Amino acid sequence: MSTNTSSHPVTTYIGESAWSLIEPRFSSFAKKTLENLIDFLETECLPAEHLYHAQIPHDPVQRWKVIPPVMEELKRKAKSRGLWNLFLSKLHYPEHGVDLTNLEYAVMAEIMGHAPLICPQATNCAAPDTGNMEVLARYANPEQQKKYLLPLLDGQIRSSFAMTEFGVASSDATNLATKIERKNGEVIVTGRKWWISGAGDPRNAIHILIGLSDPENPNPHKRFTIVLIPADHPSVKVVRPMQVFGYDDAPEGHCEVLYDHVRLNEKECLVGGWGRGFEIIQGRLGPGRIHHCMRSIGTAERALNMMLERVSDPKRKTFGKLLKEHGTIVGDIAKSRSEIDAARLLVLTAAHRIDIARAKGAMKDIGIAKFTVPTMALKVLDRAMQAFGAEGICQDQPLAQMFAGLRTLRYADGPDEVHMLQIGRAELKRVPMLAERSKRIRDKQEALEGKGKVQAKL
Amino acid sequence: MSTNTSSHPVTTYIGESAWSLIEPRFSSFAKKTLENLIDFLETECLPAEHLYHAQIPHDPVQRWKVIPPVMEELKRKAKSRGLWNLFLSKLHYPEHGVDLTNLEYAVMAEIMGHAPLICPQATNCAAPDTGNMEVLARYANPEQQKKYLLPLLDGQIRSSFAMTEFGVASSDATNLATKIERKNGEVIVTGRKWWISGAGDPRNAIHILIGLSDPENPNPHKRFTIVLIPADHPSVKVVRPMQVFGYDDAPEGHCEVLYDHVRLNEKECLVGGWGRGFEIIQGRLGPGRIHHCMRSIGTAERALNMMLERVSDPKRKTFGKLLKEHGTIVGDIAKSRSEIDAARLLVLTAAHRIDIARAKGAMKDIGIAKFTVPTMALKVLDRAMQAFGAEGICQDQPLAQMFAGLRTLRYADGPDEVHMLQIGRAELKRVPMLAERSKRIRDKQEALEGKGKVQAKL
Amino acid sequence: MSTNTSSHPVTTYIGESAWSLIEPRFSSFAKKTLENLIDFLETECLPAEHLYHAQIPHDPVQRWKVIPPVMEELKRKAKSRGLWNLFLSKLHYPEHGVDLTNLEYAVMAEIMGHAPLICPQATNCAAPDTGNMEVLARYANPEQQKKYLLPLLDGQIRSSFAMTEFGVASSDATNLATKIERKNGEVIVTGRKWWISGAGDPRNAIHILIGLSDPENPNPHKRFTIVLIPADHPSVKVVRPMQVFGYDDAPEGHCEVLYDHVRLNEKECLVGGWGRGFEIIQGRLGPGRIHHCMRSIGTAERALNMMLERVSDPKRKTFGKLLKEHGTIVGDIAKSRSEIDAARLLVLTAAHRIDIARAKGAMKDIGIAKFTVPTMALKVLDRAMQAFGAEGICQDQPLAQMFAGLRTLRYADGPDEVHMLQIGRAELKRVPMLAERSKRIRDKQEALEGKGKVQAKL
Amino acid sequence: MSTNTSSHPVTTYIGESAWSLIEPRFSSFAKKTLENLIDFLETECLPAEHLYHAQIPHDPVQRWKVIPPVMEELKRKAKSRGLWNLFLSKLHYPEHGVDLTNLEYAVMAEIMGHAPLICPQATNCAAPDTGNMEVLARYANPEQQKKYLLPLLDGQIRSSFAMTEFGVASSDATNLATKIERKNGEVIVTGRKWWISGAGDPRNAIHILIGLSDPENPNPHKRFTIVLIPADHPSVKVVRPMQVFGYDDAPEGHCEVLYDHVRLNEKECLVGGWGRGFEIIQGRLGPGRIHHCMRSIGTAERALNMMLERVSDPKRKTFGKLLKEHGTIVGDIAKSRSEIDAARLLVLTAAHRIDIARAKGAMKDIGIAKFTVPTMALKVLDRAMQAFGAEGICQDQPLAQMFAGLRTLRYADGPDEVHMLQIGRAELKRVPMLAERSKRIRDKQEALEGKGKVQAKL
Repeated sequence: MSTNTSSHPVTTYIGESAWSLIEPRFSSFAKKTLENLIDFLETECLPAEHLYHAQIPHDPVQRWKVIPPVMEELKRKAKSRGLWNLFLSKLHYPEHGVDLTNLEYAVMAEIMGHAPLICPQATNCAAPDTGNMEVLARYANPEQQKKYLLPLLDGQIRSSFAMTEFGVASSDATNLATKIERKNGEVIVTGRKWWISGAGDPRNAIHILIGLSDPENPNPHKRFTIVLIPADHPSVKVVRPMQVFGYDDAPEGHCEVLYDHVRLNEKECLVGGWGRGFEIIQGRLGPGRIHHCMRSIGTAERALNMMLERVSDPKRKTFGKLLKEHGTIVGDIAKSRSEIDAARLLVLTAAHRIDIARAKGAMKDIGIAKFTVPTMALKVLDRAMQAFGAEGICQDQPLAQMFAGLRTLRYADGPDEVHMLQIGRAELKRVPMLAERSKRIRDKQEALEGKGKVQAKL
Repeated sequence: MSTNTSSHPVTTYIGESAWSLIEPRFSSFAKKTLENLIDFLETECLPAEHLYHAQIPHDPVQRWKVIPPVMEELKRKAKSRGLWNLFLSKLHYPEHGVDLTNLEYAVMAEIMGHAPLICPQATNCAAPDTGNMEVLARYANPEQQKKYLLPLLDGQIRSSFAMTEFGVASSDATNLATKIERKNGEVIVTGRKWWISGAGDPRNAIHILIGLSDPENPNPHKRFTIVLIPADHPSVKVVRPMQVFGYDDAPEGHCEVLYDHVRLNEKECLVGGWGRGFEIIQGRLGPGRIHHCMRSIGTAERALNMMLERVSDPKRKTFGKLLKEHGTIVGDIAKSRSEIDAARLLVLTAAHRIDIARAKGAMKDIGIAKFTVPTMALKVLDRAMQAFGAEGICQDQPLAQMFAGLRTLRYADGPDEVHMLQIGRAELKRVPMLAERSKRIRDKQEALEGKGKVQAKL
Repeated sequence: MSTNTSSHPVTTYIGESAWSLIEPRFSSFAKKTLENLIDFLETECLPAEHLYHAQIPHDPVQRWKVIPPVMEELKRKAKSRGLWNLFLSKLHYPEHGVDLTNLEYAVMAEIMGHAPLICPQATNCAAPDTGNMEVLARYANPEQQKKYLLPLLDGQIRSSFAMTEFGVASSDATNLATKIERKNGEVIVTGRKWWISGAGDPRNAIHILIGLSDPENPNPHKRFTIVLIPADHPSVKVVRPMQVFGYDDAPEGHCEVLYDHVRLNEKECLVGGWGRGFEIIQGRLGPGRIHHCMRSIGTAERALNMMLERVSDPKRKTFGKLLKEHGTIVGDIAKSRSEIDAARLLVLTAAHRIDIARAKGAMKDIGIAKFTVPTMALKVLDRAMQAFGAEGICQDQPLAQMFAGLRTLRYADGPDEVHMLQIGRAELKRVPMLAERSKRIRDKQEALEGKGKVQAKL
Repeated sequence: MSTNTSSHPVTTYIGESAWSLIEPRFSSFAKKTLENLIDFLETECLPAEHLYHAQIPHDPVQRWKVIPPVMEELKRKAKSRGLWNLFLSKLHYPEHGVDLTNLEYAVMAEIMGHAPLICPQATNCAAPDTGNMEVLARYANPEQQKKYLLPLLDGQIRSSFAMTEFGVASSDATNLATKIERKNGEVIVTGRKWWISGAGDPRNAIHILIGLSDPENPNPHKRFTIVLIPADHPSVKVVRPMQVFGYDDAPEGHCEVLYDHVRLNEKECLVGGWGRGFEIIQGRLGPGRIHHCMRSIGTAERALNMMLERVSDPKRKTFGKLLKEHGTIVGDIAKSRSEIDAARLLVLTAAHRIDIARAKGAMKDIGIAKFTVPTMALKVLDRAMQAFGAEGICQDQPLAQMFAGLRTLRYADGPDEVHMLQIGRAELKRVPMLAERSKRIRDKQEALEGKGKVQAKL
């Protein structure tokens, strides 16, 4: 009946209660790494957040050519602290992975989410590189791994994943239309994609692209193939950065890209073999969704922390009272507390489920988290923004940019509606079991009452 | 990486993922008891639910005089199965308690919540007896324990707790006005209470009453005392049963009671000593709130199960489709699934917190659960009722009566608003820690940027 | 720029702003009638509400045999004031109707909704009699009108409408299975219905029943016929009253009724002719839905009024403050005010639309009101109940019974979900017009920009 | 009973039902102007929307120096059509006003809201110029009017209103700290403001600034004065544009401005006299809030229109179905339809109230609209964005920028919370009237029942 679990600094982030529930499952390595990460967040990432933005030029051309120097400095520090590639679990990636379970990493992803534009990248744990490294580790051949996986693991280059297409309802991946053709020993890629994250980044070395290679295959899930395209290929044309609300997220960006008859060498470009595109992207999504969710929870927690400080600020009195003494503010704080805590437990449970049943066995838990967490986080962010007034939605606070980023998660990797449909249907699969149970209960009831003896309830 | 945890039948109630998270904390005794309880629910309680209601007479007088025989039969069966007084943890009540933690019992309370009017009473785990037994076990003298605690623990008698008062805003307990006076060696109790659960029950033997004994005490928390009043005392007058929505919950009831100069012997009646009323009721509330929450989650889970069966029922086609194929039904199911799962984890975390830090150390977790769970459960119930149409709100299905019961939990033991206020304030206590952290970050930032060197973000 | 419109007492019910918007459309007869009705509500109906309930016996048999005498007294008073059958607009029913538009009556229905169990019945404006009188006035033959319509118009008898069936998804009326057969010159009705409102009432004289008369008709909308069945026919068996939450709504009730080979004379029983059942019930629903909505708004307004008084009650201080000084109460009041006002305007607009385009031309407005108003009113009621605590859900206040009644409106006459679907589809019918407009705009844009000259927005 | 009101093109914007309710209050001039405006929107504004954005340079300096030529062209066209200064009602501004009521203009503001960045400015009806012209028309001296009001009315110059301050909780205007001092016959203004809309615009000629002129005045509402500051005064320093989410809204902008000892001539600068600042800003807010609300409703209506087209687009099939055939889309459309319609009626009612009782008599209606409409519009926008997926939040669709603009309205001119508080309190002022009515009813009830004769309801 001791409470000394609470001495770990993570309790100031996730609370003592959640920690005491999961703490026995954390190795001492994980606990130390977590402490290390928290220190890195507080002493390096958060202090550098403002400088990072200040080092991005305003000029519309230059802002895509310069990497803020403070970021490369942070990466060096993270690597020397051993805070590197934490997302890659040795459980699933014995060769390159780190000795952390998904549950252990989930808490770390939440910590990173407090500085969502800084900390994940600084620790080489940022999307889309994370999912790309997983794909390359599992499906790429040794040549490809040497050329792309190792420098990615080392943080020397970055990468993008080219899936979403212009003018296409690509939440149904079978609609993808970018062509991958084999002609005279060459592979030729032709199409227009957009929202290709990282394609604007001068460090980007590789596009991992999924396209339609076998349109006539009767099995629609075998029509697609994944290829590697060097970012500097002359037929790859970055057309423009897309904006999220007004943000272009330079220098990484989410770009429209024209693949204008990109000619590739088949052996060099093919990932996992012809027709395996679908299989590969499905494996890519599970843990990544949990990471997004945990980072979102960290972001929401930070927003709540900011709100707590703001409404207690003696300089912010209105009508003779602190903001926290007004109307509904305290109630809003309580709701945010409850919603964040509940969402965190939901995601931790899903992360643990991945540990014991792999992503496939955790699909339901992942799906629930996927459609629940971003909506929750947006509500918390919105309340925090409201407490900050005009300051809350401008460049002087990180809230609006965080909100914009979170908003994309309600359709990225499949819109909420699709995930809700899938979860609803998964629940409906319990009906035969329930119906059988109900029948047993009714039989017992009839035996107890004597058929027809007891009247309908009046 | 095995999933064989899933073989326990509880996984069909709380899901495999929640179970795998908490299963290592369950003793083998707890696991067996849980399996036993599930069997008791399915083979005894649920089949008896209809008969229980059918055995309550319609006559407005008779319905307060008869205990449905099936209930006493169920109690015998539960006792012989060892499913008895499970709520009383040996951890806190070494003498009479059962070897279960709060976490272990929490899951059992959820199971009981599937038949909320049957299973808790059948296992001697029903409010208000549970809290009353805790009070008597902790504060009553040996004579009192012999007379009331032992028969309560044995299920021979029932009890009520007399706190809420007519015409008084008793969510602030310092408003209580029922007088407890000492005169000529006697204790005299005078007042009008209502919503005294169980006061209509012919088995009720004892009112545990809190009243104002020392109105002038400068410390408002020392003005109140708890006394025991035999239910058959001639000056105790049960005026009428109160209705919850239209339900009178006979034969137990929630009654208006007139204490009309009830004369008592001081030694026999006094619990814990003069002026300790407040202290006692506060200790009474913590775990009880968690039990309410877990039962509510069980009730919500049953409502969702009922909805799943209903919308899949081939007899319920409208416009050529099953209900589940219409509009928003599947989305509603997904939301209910997410909300129940999140709420369960919140309450399990609070229960575990009580195990390691007692009720006092878990106040925040308990408070969050208290204002979150009933609202969640009401939403799930409402969706289920809507899927059942008119049948959903009538006596042929348990949903409406469950809804009514759950609705009371939004103000019983303190209204949601009070709990939200307390949780909001508890969160605000984190501000000094956060402010100190923010200051450290700002100092680092200035050191990094060089004061004034980096301009405000344009 | 005068505000003297505000002198009408209705402004204390619907506010000055809504009144000044619609006042020019009110005849002076309507204004006087409205003033008369408000006086009747305040001086007769509301003072009698408690007595009405007290005059209903508790005995489960007797409560279906006695009409509270105060109700017959109120009916006499209403009739002598000319407050009688106000629902029947001369616009649509020149023979029996009153000189009021639907808009004018809508405001009166709101006033009646302040005492929903008293005032509509006292003024002969209560469902299901209202819709039944409309059906009889439009489709019954002179004999039938003499026998049933005239005594209904006079308030001597009451009536019920038998549609909903046991075990059938009757929100899709084509599922109805009660048989209406012609044999040897007789009509024979066989089936089991439930939720037949008014079937328990000793004054009930007539069941207007819809059943399946021509199951093989290729047009499913021509398979049904409406017949009149005398309530005292020996083959009509009232099985039991259904409960709404715990309320049986005696003496009127909503009963399960067995039609056990009810033999009828074809000429006497047939309404409007064979196969016209569908057509008749559809015409019956439009204005009735608006009446339900306006009464619901009146009920919500009363709940808000009650809440306003309660939270200002100096006897209800908690923690040293009036309830209105606590947390979110004032915000809840503001939300309720906004929601009621918006809903009222929506329904008034629909009522006015019926006046100018009949029910058929107002289907969209009626549908929007139908799925919007009950949910709104339930929210307002729920907030009011919460402000009253335990007292709010018991028999000492009307709130819980009002809540139960409002809850039925979310599926009665078609569940919310069906109406939302229909409105969504009606909106989608605007797409061709919108697409044509969009095309015109794009053509203009291209002319303005010069095709291809202006680049995609960067 | 005719429906030929529906021939006006406005029925395709606000629906036939709302139009038939208000149409009798529209003059034939107003109807023609409305038709003219709709034509201008469809044939000029919407086709120019894309070009307007394309003509704003990307260069961070240049974008503040260039006015998109298409805007000046649109202004010429609007003026020649007589669509100019429609916001200024002759009712309140006989000299410069247009012959339109607030109700009539409200519908026009909704039409303008379909192109919120184009149409209001093109018709000289854009904030903050509108409120500024009202202030100058009412309070400026003839010299000032000649210099600023006339060119503003003519659309030659633009203006800004300098109120919000950096680091100050300026939703409580008594917190404003910018100093206005009189020294040696000069007026000196010193302070830092931000969110000064239009201050970045090269056409901006004048800052109307409110500052603290008499800090010791015992009446805090008399401490403030309004002065005119030429935009090109050398001591006015535009520090930076603030971003709303990621948008800088160039070339108008919302800027941080340093007033660095701005020396002014007292006669030229003073508006309305010393100490009248508060009085002036309060008069400025009423109708302006209604204009914001109506434009927001127009924006929401456009978003719904866009959603309707999108979900019907045959190119957007997923999983073999149009988007509108999936899950909750149709329900979302129905909800949006209901919410927009209800909000519109609320605002039209408030606008009409201003016509008959001026802004002061309409404060409650304005307040309800103020806190209800932006939240409603944001919900509608959010659903539309979700239907568009990634495209919905980027520069290829106007939705995200509209969302950002609407989000500011939840705190601009006072945060929602303040307005809800005021409306809640206004409602509570009805309590004495309600209490008096309740007393009358209770007295009647006692007379009816005979005191004490009828028992409490059992």
